[in-house]
Amino acid sequence: MTRFVDKITFFDRRASPMAEAEDVARDGLLIHYGSPAGASPPGNVAGGSVTLGQLFKRVGDAHSGGGGGEEGGEVGSVSRLRHVIEVDPFEEYQLGSPPPPPFVLAFTDLTYSVKRRERMSLLRRNRLALDPPETAAERGRTKTLLNSISGEAREGEIFAVLGASGSGKSTLIDALANRIARESLQGSVTLNGEKLEGRLLKVISAYVMQDDLLYPMLTVEETLMFSAEFRLPRSLSASKKKSRVQALIDQLGLRAAAKTIIGDEIHRGVSGGERRRVSIGIDIIHDPILLFLDEPTSGLDSTSAFMVVKVLQRIAHSGSIVIMSVHQPSYRILRLLDRLLILSRGQTVYSGAPDGLHSFFADFGHSIPDGENPTEFALDLIRELEGTPAGATALVQFNKSRAAAQPAASKPAALSLKDAISVSISRGKLVSGATEGATSSSSSVQKHANPFWIEMGVLTKRSWTNTKRMPELFAIRLAAILLTGFILATIFWRLDNSPKGVQERLGFFAIAMSTMFYSCADALPVFLQERSIFMRETAYNAYRRSSYVLSNAIVGFPPLVLLSVAFALTTYFAVGLAGGMQGFVFFVLIVLAAFWSGSGFVTFLSGVVTHILLGYTVVVALLAYFLLFSGFFINRDRIHDYWLWFHYMSLVKYPYEAVMQNEFDDPHKCFVRGVQMFDNTPLAALPEVAKLTVLRSMGQSLGVNLTGSTCITTGTGILQQQSITQLTKWDCLWITVAWGFLFRFLFYISLLLGSRNKRR
Amino acid sequence: MTRFVDKITFFDRRASPMAEAEDVARDGLLIHYGSPAGASPPGNVAGGSVTLGQLFKRVGDAHSGGGGGEEGGEVGSVSRLRHVIEVDPFEEYQLGSPPPPPFVLAFTDLTYSVKRRERMSLLRRNRLALDPPETAAERGRTKTLLNSISGEAREGEIFAVLGASGSGKSTLIDALANRIARESLQGSVTLNGEKLEGRLLKVISAYVMQDDLLYPMLTVEETLMFSAEFRLPRSLSASKKKSRVQALIDQLGLRAAAKTIIGDEIHRGVSGGERRRVSIGIDIIHDPILLFLDEPTSGLDSTSAFMVVKVLQRIAHSGSIVIMSVHQPSYRILRLLDRLLILSRGQTVYSGAPDGLHSFFADFGHSIPDGENPTEFALDLIRELEGTPAGATALVQFNKSRAAAQPAASKPAALSLKDAISVSISRGKLVSGATEGATSSSSSVQKHANPFWIEMGVLTKRSWTNTKRMPELFAIRLAAILLTGFILATIFWRLDNSPKGVQERLGFFAIAMSTMFYSCADALPVFLQERSIFMRETAYNAYRRSSYVLSNAIVGFPPLVLLSVAFALTTYFAVGLAGGMQGFVFFVLIVLAAFWSGSGFVTFLSGVVTHILLGYTVVVALLAYFLLFSGFFINRDRIHDYWLWFHYMSLVKYPYEAVMQNEFDDPHKCFVRGVQMFDNTPLAALPEVAKLTVLRSMGQSLGVNLTGSTCITTGTGILQQQSITQLTKWDCLWITVAWGFLFRFLFYISLLLGSRNKRR
Repeated sequence: MTRFVDKITFFDRRASPMAEAEDVARDGLLIHYGSPAGASPPGNVAGGSVTLGQLFKRVGDAHSGGGGGEEGGEVGSVSRLRHVIEVDPFEEYQLGSPPPPPFVLAFTDLTYSVKRRERMSLLRRNRLALDPPETAAERGRTKTLLNSISGEAREGEIFAVLGASGSGKSTLIDALANRIARESLQGSVTLNGEKLEGRLLKVISAYVMQDDLLYPMLTVEETLMFSAEFRLPRSLSASKKKSRVQALIDQLGLRAAAKTIIGDEIHRGVSGGERRRVSIGIDIIHDPILLFLDEPTSGLDSTSAFMVVKVLQRIAHSGSIVIMSVHQPSYRILRLLDRLLILSRGQTVYSGAPDGLHSFFADFGHSIPDGENPTEFALDLIRELEGTPAGATALVQFNKSRAAAQPAASKPAALSLKDAISVSISRGKLVSGATEGATSSSSSVQKHANPFWIEMGVLTKRSWTNTKRMPELFAIRLAAILLTGFILATIFWRLDNSPKGVQERLGFFAIAMSTMFYSCADALPVFLQERSIFMRETAYNAYRRSSYVLSNAIVGFPPLVLLSVAFALTTYFAVGLAGGMQGFVFFVLIVLAAFWSGSGFVTFLSGVVTHILLGYTVVVALLAYFLLFSGFFINRDRIHDYWLWFHYMSLVKYPYEAVMQNEFDDPHKCFVRGVQMFDNTPLAALPEVAKLTVLRSMGQSLGVNLTGSTCITTGTGILQQQSITQLTKWDCLWITVAWGFLFRFLFYISLLLGSRNKRR
Repeated sequence: MTRFVDKITFFDRRASPMAEAEDVARDGLLIHYGSPAGASPPGNVAGGSVTLGQLFKRVGDAHSGGGGGEEGGEVGSVSRLRHVIEVDPFEEYQLGSPPPPPFVLAFTDLTYSVKRRERMSLLRRNRLALDPPETAAERGRTKTLLNSISGEAREGEIFAVLGASGSGKSTLIDALANRIARESLQGSVTLNGEKLEGRLLKVISAYVMQDDLLYPMLTVEETLMFSAEFRLPRSLSASKKKSRVQALIDQLGLRAAAKTIIGDEIHRGVSGGERRRVSIGIDIIHDPILLFLDEPTSGLDSTSAFMVVKVLQRIAHSGSIVIMSVHQPSYRILRLLDRLLILSRGQTVYSGAPDGLHSFFADFGHSIPDGENPTEFALDLIRELEGTPAGATALVQFNKSRAAAQPAASKPAALSLKDAISVSISRGKLVSGATEGATSSSSSVQKHANPFWIEMGVLTKRSWTNTKRMPELFAIRLAAILLTGFILATIFWRLDNSPKGVQERLGFFAIAMSTMFYSCADALPVFLQERSIFMRETAYNAYRRSSYVLSNAIVGFPPLVLLSVAFALTTYFAVGLAGGMQGFVFFVLIVLAAFWSGSGFVTFLSGVVTHILLGYTVVVALLAYFLLFSGFFINRDRIHDYWLWFHYMSLVKYPYEAVMQNEFDDPHKCFVRGVQMFDNTPLAALPEVAKLTVLRSMGQSLGVNLTGSTCITTGTGILQQQSITQLTKWDCLWITVAWGFLFRFLFYISLLLGSRNKRR
């Protein structure tokens, strides 16, 4: 292992950064080993009968007692001692000290079947004629994704699951990571011989998904720091959290990229491999004992992929079990893997060390040619066999008989699960906040690391940091609002008080209030992106869903205020709306309320409809129906009874009625005066004098004096004509605001229901 | 080469499909060699002084004279002869027959620089502190993508360009394929010593892009058949085209998948590797001499990637030069490559055979360890060097000095370009329609293989075949239209003839006409997907842009008729619109016209705005403005002069005015009768008797008799009030139809401007 690759500089200009990184990493991780306030040495613990809770507690003390490694001077001689003691745990085993018992994750006869949904028969028929074996299997009502899989993954090792797509790799990882509902999965998974309880597993493990879901505008360091604030216990001081993040940055080889933003399609950020390592870092911030990864190298070029697996090896050596799926490892990556499990259609084809592949396939009668990548060879052979009617059965059988011939050489773990965990903690592992304050019964393990208000603060800060670095997003929304405002202002410029002017006011209000809602629809992509991050983070209880919903609303609010004021300023005075300064303030408030309920509505829909184009279509269509039923196109008293419920559900109704009342609630203001009442009748064509004559004779028959300046219709009259009589303008305002809250509550519900992440 | 991989069955159940495939392929490709009407033997041609045009002509005769290989009986003894003669061209060279001169594509000192656009300075500063070398380069105003690259690719070989992303791989391929504007590119590219003229290159070459853009619902065979119809000359009989496609299917190893649809996310189709091979097949249907591929293996698993390159090797051996870029070839793929060119930041790091890598790096002082993939090693080393301040300069220099020490062993091509092409054609290569009827001046080479009407027919057939297999797309649109129709019908159920009823009719018409347009917006994704396929196909002149635009309109029309009738049936009678059967027919026609212009509008936008979400937003916003300016919200006579132009541009105006006139153009039909004229005034509250008194006194002062049944406002009066006076309803219909045509013409223009595919 002295090739140049091992010295790759991770884009750093320092002499030997990786060596340095490893030093720092140990400083960060194993900081408490041998420190004055530290835990008892492993031997003692193994002999004692302490509870898991007590052990966690002891470690908590150790955490608060030890000095931060990176804080320079304060560490003194302790630091020196540490440097002597702290060697790679693995090397340590071989150095003669009592061998600490490794964790062993064993799984036996895992079997998992799903019912197949019927496909469109037309398409199936197409394929049928050509591919009998596959479609025959398809027609069966259930499909076996895992078929009696057994194996063993050990601390300090990388356990890799290989196979073609559809072979069951991801399913097996999910089964081990307890992401499949217990009742659907047959077989057992044990850690050091004990069944793993779901809550405890969540605490001591991490699951890294394939997608890198990260806030694009945060730096690498910030991203990890926020993760630390969510997942590390509150009792850990800020400086400790910082040093943990720094140690992690070095462990991940991200030192040079620490201050660079993650980036997205528009903003240049870190490379794909760096991004993947940040994703891993987020999930291992609490230094878990079990690390599951679903194809961590997919989509990376070979060098980046190699560095990711190298990081994983380092994590394994620090005392973890690393279990990953990988499609087809390169030669170099293969050399980093300790155990392989090769699957074909849910069955084990090979299980053992990479070195064993040559003799295995030679015995099977297909020697691997020199220079050939053994896994490439294996997967090609499997693929070829799968193409035959018998499938890979021969190979599966051969593997079974071979396994039976060689009785398992695995020695059981030396320590019980509890003791092993306590030893591990005492060695600096598992800095998870979730362990804090736990008692011996793991069911009482706290679900979240931090109380509600801290989560709120951190989430708000993170979201705000990310948002403020993308000012262009707000700028585009503002520009859209200003443009629409400008067009509305110029087309409805200084409306007069006449029947036509009144009609145009109605149109203006209907359009203006719909604009708020439609403008919110454009934020749908942003919501959807955030939603994915949220889903991943709440999957391991990084924070409460409620904190997220609230902080989401808080961060989103200030921009809405600016947009409201901008829209009101562009239109209110230009159109010549009534009510003076008071009217203007109410106009701003109702526009803001419309934005608030609109963004709530779109946020809620983003929680329900996760496909972006479908979501957009649904939002646009629903808003169109809201507008249709708002009372503008058809007055409330003319809507048939069977549609009245939708009229009251129309979000646009309330802001529309509010601005209408704001405009027309002056009982003294006149909108139709004298002969203007004939404007929309055939009499409009008569000369002014004739109209006045008609008006006078009308007055005579009614017994009142009607002249050219008599007010025929006041604002109140218009409201009555439009059937806007049930609610005051303040009622409408509060109802609009309440809609906003309701939708955010529904969003919360949708997250609760939607973020289940176990397979059935 | 006798390992099991070479016998991979390509999902076929036959004994030795690849051997069979190669046989059939030769039947298809080299069908004219030795046929009675065939060309003179190579020797003759080389000696003669025929023009290129004459050669093409001669081949044309051969095409029309020779019998189809797959048609069975008719070939007889000729077929036998062929089987004796047709051996792999490469093997033939070694068999002692006069060696046919291979094509040699040579390129010398290719240099290409681009001006860098300024990045957001804020972000750059972030990176600056950490990464001085990179940002220093970035700050420079120009970036050199290719820096004096030279090399040589030969017939029968695969020439592979390697390098990290950003090293200039794709740029070099583009430069060789004449996809960079001549004036920007320095250096020379020659084929057999002659400069390549753009048009000729298009005829004898093919460029395969990274993306698989295929009609999802066509089968593999259909896809290739349509490609054959576009690219093979009309003089080639249908049966010849069919046999060419069959040969190609075998050459590509797609026999088992031939009848399977391509598929998409929803519809299950062929595998990724099969799809990639179909993409290659489409571009090599005319059996080009030069084949360029940009990362043909990207996104494929190693087995599929291997099979793709294996197919490429077979193509090379059939007498082509294959030039491809590849990110990091696996060991097995590497053995299929004949020449490598490794780039680092636009500079040559290595050039030569794969076998030479070991000695090259050994001499450089970094031996490749045993078992290591040499290209992985090389790229890692380069990456490490690029991380240093000096970059990979040392390696570039080393390569230069080594190249200087070993004078080029390449022998120049034996034949002139013209002669080589003619020999190649006589051997069955280059079945391109573009060669047909060409004269000696290659500038007069016909641009398209088929006349306009044939393109139209084929395009229409293809699009129709694809569409009719996705009935669910139409079903969704129909359901949306029916749902909206149902809601409108029930909310505007049986409108009465009163002032309010009139107002509601206006609202109904405005909404109904906008619905047509919004419903078209939902088809945007379909248009965008088609557009990508179109772009690729017209890039090599598969057909005229005009044929595409027309066939697109033709295929899209029948569904619109159904949608129009469905919408009219749901709403017309339910709302109680006027005009009887004649009115209904006109209603259907104007709805259809609205659909027609709306789909034209969206089609046009899909040609201009290619990002789907942006496109959707733009369509929705523009349609909202169209509605705003249609005359419904503000009448024409009330719109300020500076906005009148937009009123006339509003697509919604014309259908809206047309349905208004259809409803209200009866001068005898009464909408406001007697006391109804007071409905929207304070007098509405008076008792009926009092209103009649007022009405009578009004009549007296006007000198007419007004009773409770006197018609106050007729339909004509309403049209006048709404300023719908300029155009007749038929005018509006024709204008709407004309908009549809105009937008399709604009779409055509946008395609003309947008489908330039050269770099500047």
